[in-house]
Amino acid sequence: MPESGPKEYTEDDLLELFDRVSNTGRWGDDDELGTLNYITPEKRVAAAKLVALGETLSLARPLSTEQTPANPSPPVHFMVAASRANPSASALDYFGGAPHGRAFTHLDAVAHNNFEGRVYNGRRAEDVYQPKGLTFGSSFAQRHGIFTRGVLLDIARTRGVPYLEPDQGVTVSDLEAAEQAQGVRVESGDVLLLHIGYLEFERATGRYGNIFTGQFAGLTPDTIEWLHEREVAVYGGDCIEQNHPSERFNHLPLHRIAIPSMGLILVDYPDVESLAARCAELARWEFLFTMAPIALPKATGSFINPIAVF
Amino acid sequence: MPESGPKEYTEDDLLELFDRVSNTGRWGDDDELGTLNYITPEKRVAAAKLVALGETLSLARPLSTEQTPANPSPPVHFMVAASRANPSASALDYFGGAPHGRAFTHLDAVAHNNFEGRVYNGRRAEDVYQPKGLTFGSSFAQRHGIFTRGVLLDIARTRGVPYLEPDQGVTVSDLEAAEQAQGVRVESGDVLLLHIGYLEFERATGRYGNIFTGQFAGLTPDTIEWLHEREVAVYGGDCIEQNHPSERFNHLPLHRIAIPSMGLILVDYPDVESLAARCAELARWEFLFTMAPIALPKATGSFINPIAVF
Amino acid sequence: MPESGPKEYTEDDLLELFDRVSNTGRWGDDDELGTLNYITPEKRVAAAKLVALGETLSLARPLSTEQTPANPSPPVHFMVAASRANPSASALDYFGGAPHGRAFTHLDAVAHNNFEGRVYNGRRAEDVYQPKGLTFGSSFAQRHGIFTRGVLLDIARTRGVPYLEPDQGVTVSDLEAAEQAQGVRVESGDVLLLHIGYLEFERATGRYGNIFTGQFAGLTPDTIEWLHEREVAVYGGDCIEQNHPSERFNHLPLHRIAIPSMGLILVDYPDVESLAARCAELARWEFLFTMAPIALPKATGSFINPIAVF
Amino acid sequence: MPESGPKEYTEDDLLELFDRVSNTGRWGDDDELGTLNYITPEKRVAAAKLVALGETLSLARPLSTEQTPANPSPPVHFMVAASRANPSASALDYFGGAPHGRAFTHLDAVAHNNFEGRVYNGRRAEDVYQPKGLTFGSSFAQRHGIFTRGVLLDIARTRGVPYLEPDQGVTVSDLEAAEQAQGVRVESGDVLLLHIGYLEFERATGRYGNIFTGQFAGLTPDTIEWLHEREVAVYGGDCIEQNHPSERFNHLPLHRIAIPSMGLILVDYPDVESLAARCAELARWEFLFTMAPIALPKATGSFINPIAVF
Repeated sequence: MPESGPKEYTEDDLLELFDRVSNTGRWGDDDELGTLNYITPEKRVAAAKLVALGETLSLARPLSTEQTPANPSPPVHFMVAASRANPSASALDYFGGAPHGRAFTHLDAVAHNNFEGRVYNGRRAEDVYQPKGLTFGSSFAQRHGIFTRGVLLDIARTRGVPYLEPDQGVTVSDLEAAEQAQGVRVESGDVLLLHIGYLEFERATGRYGNIFTGQFAGLTPDTIEWLHEREVAVYGGDCIEQNHPSERFNHLPLHRIAIPSMGLILVDYPDVESLAARCAELARWEFLFTMAPIALPKATGSFINPIAVF
Repeated sequence: MPESGPKEYTEDDLLELFDRVSNTGRWGDDDELGTLNYITPEKRVAAAKLVALGETLSLARPLSTEQTPANPSPPVHFMVAASRANPSASALDYFGGAPHGRAFTHLDAVAHNNFEGRVYNGRRAEDVYQPKGLTFGSSFAQRHGIFTRGVLLDIARTRGVPYLEPDQGVTVSDLEAAEQAQGVRVESGDVLLLHIGYLEFERATGRYGNIFTGQFAGLTPDTIEWLHEREVAVYGGDCIEQNHPSERFNHLPLHRIAIPSMGLILVDYPDVESLAARCAELARWEFLFTMAPIALPKATGSFINPIAVF
Repeated sequence: MPESGPKEYTEDDLLELFDRVSNTGRWGDDDELGTLNYITPEKRVAAAKLVALGETLSLARPLSTEQTPANPSPPVHFMVAASRANPSASALDYFGGAPHGRAFTHLDAVAHNNFEGRVYNGRRAEDVYQPKGLTFGSSFAQRHGIFTRGVLLDIARTRGVPYLEPDQGVTVSDLEAAEQAQGVRVESGDVLLLHIGYLEFERATGRYGNIFTGQFAGLTPDTIEWLHEREVAVYGGDCIEQNHPSERFNHLPLHRIAIPSMGLILVDYPDVESLAARCAELARWEFLFTMAPIALPKATGSFINPIAVF
Repeated sequence: MPESGPKEYTEDDLLELFDRVSNTGRWGDDDELGTLNYITPEKRVAAAKLVALGETLSLARPLSTEQTPANPSPPVHFMVAASRANPSASALDYFGGAPHGRAFTHLDAVAHNNFEGRVYNGRRAEDVYQPKGLTFGSSFAQRHGIFTRGVLLDIARTRGVPYLEPDQGVTVSDLEAAEQAQGVRVESGDVLLLHIGYLEFERATGRYGNIFTGQFAGLTPDTIEWLHEREVAVYGGDCIEQNHPSERFNHLPLHRIAIPSMGLILVDYPDVESLAARCAELARWEFLFTMAPIALPKATGSFINPIAVF
């Protein structure tokens, strides 16, 4: 086991970490973009130059209406009736759902999570969380899209396993070992994607990871500071954080520290399986990353389809 | 008035046009991508090179839950309750809607429209339009995203008006006049965006365009052949087609010919107002265009947020 | 096996039956109430007099959001957020669903079903089935409620079994045997409820009946004529009809003959298990029956909670 | 102005009233029925005897999908597509909505409202209001229906006006004046319905009442004690309470006192216009009242269609 494991983080350590990684006020009092601020025009121009093959690859898991332990409240999808008398009537459908959970790929608004009422950039949940939606830090703030370099760190591959077991943590040592093995370095403004082989685990074992019972491999708290130091703009991966034994932090230090304190943007549950395979084939771990939320004001997040472009 | 106006297209002409612009079988019997096939890897690489400033701009109109004549069945958007006892409970919401109509920006699946039961690539509506969704030509086929050159033709600017009047047609002459005035040429694999000033019209007059009553400026049928010849991959604009006096074609020749016969991909009702302003400032009418539908299998279309990158 | 089994009904027999039981025009050209017309004011007054104990009993199955083979598209139900700052904020929820299928108790509008485009009272599906809802024969027509005598015929009890097997038919002989055994007679304007022990079957075997694969016990076609002769106002029961080998009738002669031809009102899938138990205890098979659809114009049916009053 | 007006109720008076009318523990610690306990079997038997004419009348306002100031978040209703190839395909629809607000008739669960976290029968909102619904006091508790005597007090008629003005209060004096004028007395277990002519006001003036701005005629706090003394089982009417200048009570003393303290069942916004007309014609102000919520577990309320039977 690497040294920088989760055991050393007491609740007091997490509280201290919360303050240490804070970006409150860093980009102005009204900033709603959080770590997207690391993505400069220069960064975008450089990212566009990564397109060499002209290939695009979706990182979205298909939206499923099937109820499973990982998809307890699936979206609804219905075909809507058109006129029976009109032989050219269009095909129409209705779609509805809540863009969170662990069944499909989604983007979190920067105000989606809070810690004991503290929302990103010094706001309070009681002010921001209104019946009509978020008055600050909604995913609408991200409507001009995320366009930057993406880097995949393949933890499973670096460890030489098809998938991590549900009780395993991903530490800073894992991240840096992958960087070294792959010859790539995570830099300011990057989208960091992780591959631990979660979908492979689900398929191989027929089991579902459950963050709330601790049965889900994921990031340990030391990585939060690392994400901060490296100035990562967006974190996504087939794991989120490991369950942490702190009630105050809802067992979710990444969601309860990195989002409200750093303003870190998260893409939860992308499909990185094909991406990992393609990166390995090409022996290339960087690419242009692009995505944009639906343009829904006051939303807490968005169904999202991130695209990697090689 | 230009010569190539709508008057010359009888219903027989439209039927003939339907056959003339057909791409049935062109990209294989199972092709569901339609005109997206014009976007080659080389095209994508070239498009990426258009990124010079590192600026992104959303072309999506905000999704509104307000009922208007243009938004008769608005989406629903609710905040979902979290635990009252937990001071760190997340903000959650539910969103539902039908991704068509004329109120917000959406992508049409290639099988969204048919002509008298004829769906793109030789399929039949009675086979494809099933209660659980589209069995062919859904927007899921486009899940790897659209990444190519975008070109804006600013018709209003070329004509020297703030907006076209609702009874005006946009003809091939208009398209070519804009090309000439702007010094740009629409080429194979491009996304063609049009600006006629529709949102400006709505704001200035308080009126809403209604395609079904003929009160909506838009493309005349001659442009369909032009889109075919130029090998446009995607058409989007603040206008769709002009109402055409043909019941068999539902008054919508673009939707009832270009989609089912050519397999043309449409982005309906993007917001091109800021785009037109920025293009004029930069005196530059081409840019990288990128968008991706939500990953919903069998869907007839998708809420979409297209991004222009300069 | 009783003589009047399903084998003797060819498709021609069903077509003939369709015409023979027709109530087209019987209650006027604009009638949308169908067999509810059998419920006269006198019938209601008499039904009210059946209330002797002052007991009410719900016949609705609980609405479940769990997806099962019998509930493939379950309703959605979630709590809607209220203000966090207000300690007296109300509890709110959102509910949505399609009020048909075989998972919960619902009322069918008289125009919910048609036979090859023929809707109750001489209407055509192409006229009645509009994108905004039913223009004739919606469940809104029943908004003043159904208040009449209910009669339970307990087929399982009469046969001396806990439940019928999925391949068994319920024939006129069964209905009349139950009448005789129970000492009750179904009369004009009654709600007829049947108990075959379906929920008991599901619980005992872990299996689900499926009308479309023929694995669902139910009424045989001879009973349709009997319902017509007895002038039954509403049919409900823990079975609908048995699968019938006729494609033209969608295997559902009760839904495709009794509804569009007779205008028979159906309550699909009530919970009659407690009712059967209570009737047996009291040795009393009649009661006041009351229910009312939600007041949704143009609806094809309604989630419904029928109440038996003893 | 009558003496028992709203002016005399300070916030302290309301707090005292909250305790004075409490039914906590009265019907057992687990009771979820609240004032429905006043409806005894004998009461039901007597109510059934009121049926003399055999007439039923719906008291539900039609559910409207039109957005108005009184219906800001209208329900959604659309037709669901069936098979195009099947000429006998059924008509299906989808309906969704939140069963509260002031646009349509609905039933409040006894735990729908709380006062500063106090829910009926000694429960706490933080325990009862869970993300999956109400764990206590949901409208599912009322699934066996409400079947009792209904009494209409026609306040507008008694005052000799077509409708009350938005700033007018309905006091105990009004209730008793109507009793006297009509020759009827509200008794234990009754459903009390009030008619102040609200829908007539809306139609005549084109204005909408808004309880939160104080522009809505309604009950004054003295009536709460009267409802308690008279042992009313259900209150419904075309008014709810008058706006009261108390922030702590959300300006809604009936909702924040009678529901959580008494466990009073409310039917909000029934249509009593036809009822008032029919009662006046018959010079009869009592009738059988019957309604039942949809059988949705954990629900905060229900779309409801109450039926008066004469």
